[in-house]
Amino acid sequence: MKLSELHPEGTKVRIGTVDFTQDDIIRFAGQFDPQPFHLDPEAARQSLFGGLCASGWHTCAGWMKCFVPYWTSETIRLGKDGIVAPKLGPSPGFADLRWLRPVFAGDSITYFVTFLAAKDLESRPGWRINTIRCEGENQNGEAVIRFDSKVIEFP
Amino acid sequence: MKLSELHPEGTKVRIGTVDFTQDDIIRFAGQFDPQPFHLDPEAARQSLFGGLCASGWHTCAGWMKCFVPYWTSETIRLGKDGIVAPKLGPSPGFADLRWLRPVFAGDSITYFVTFLAAKDLESRPGWRINTIRCEGENQNGEAVIRFDSKVIEFP
Repeated sequence: MKLSELHPEGTKVRIGTVDFTQDDIIRFAGQFDPQPFHLDPEAARQSLFGGLCASGWHTCAGWMKCFVPYWTSETIRLGKDGIVAPKLGPSPGFADLRWLRPVFAGDSITYFVTFLAAKDLESRPGWRINTIRCEGENQNGEAVIRFDSKVIEFP
Repeated sequence: MKLSELHPEGTKVRIGTVDFTQDDIIRFAGQFDPQPFHLDPEAARQSLFGGLCASGWHTCAGWMKCFVPYWTSETIRLGKDGIVAPKLGPSPGFADLRWLRPVFAGDSITYFVTFLAAKDLESRPGWRINTIRCEGENQNGEAVIRFDSKVIEFP
């Protein structure tokens, strides 16, 4: 089964939720993005953001954190119905990432995937490149992140 | 001083190097991208990649891990010469990220930044949006990641 058959174009699918705790935000920032508004609640209050918020890279990684178990469970669910799940491979990259709002300590971000389009890869028969929209919104339904990713699909 | 005055257009500046150890790759993947080729050396050998390699999000975060201390030291260096460093703010997002090659366990990735362009923000006098090219290459000089980021600059 192809991804384009499994996910009708434009259908937004919820893939999971990540709670961004203060500890998790500070731990990620300490490793990868040690800026005061990601590390120190008091400094963050004095900053443009007005409160401790997650590194944008942490918000990105949260999408993947949800997608991997979502896709594993989809593969199992389809298998039970005798359907071979689309064989997805690595992503060559993505386009137009927007960090639309800060993700503050205590926020719960729910992530989504929307299948947008598929294209046959001319250089490799049977391979396809899918374009998927990846989104996250906070507990108030406000969009916090959006990007369009490419995903390889094998025959 | 504006970023466009500090960095002549098109000048590629080395900002640091991250060693991607097997342990670091597995730790990041366990938290955010638990796919076999990021978690398990043996499964990775059987995969398309042929060896344990870092989550693409880990490779992204490595750029930021280098940029923050680079920028801090630049600010100090300029200050010693009596120059006020450009006041950089958050990034609203970026464009066209490409993961060009896998980052394998044991690779050392050197990251770069290149100032591309600046635009005044019409809605906020004195504010600018800079476009910077962000790149990483491995110890063999092969490009592994590239994306163009936007960075806000305050007056």
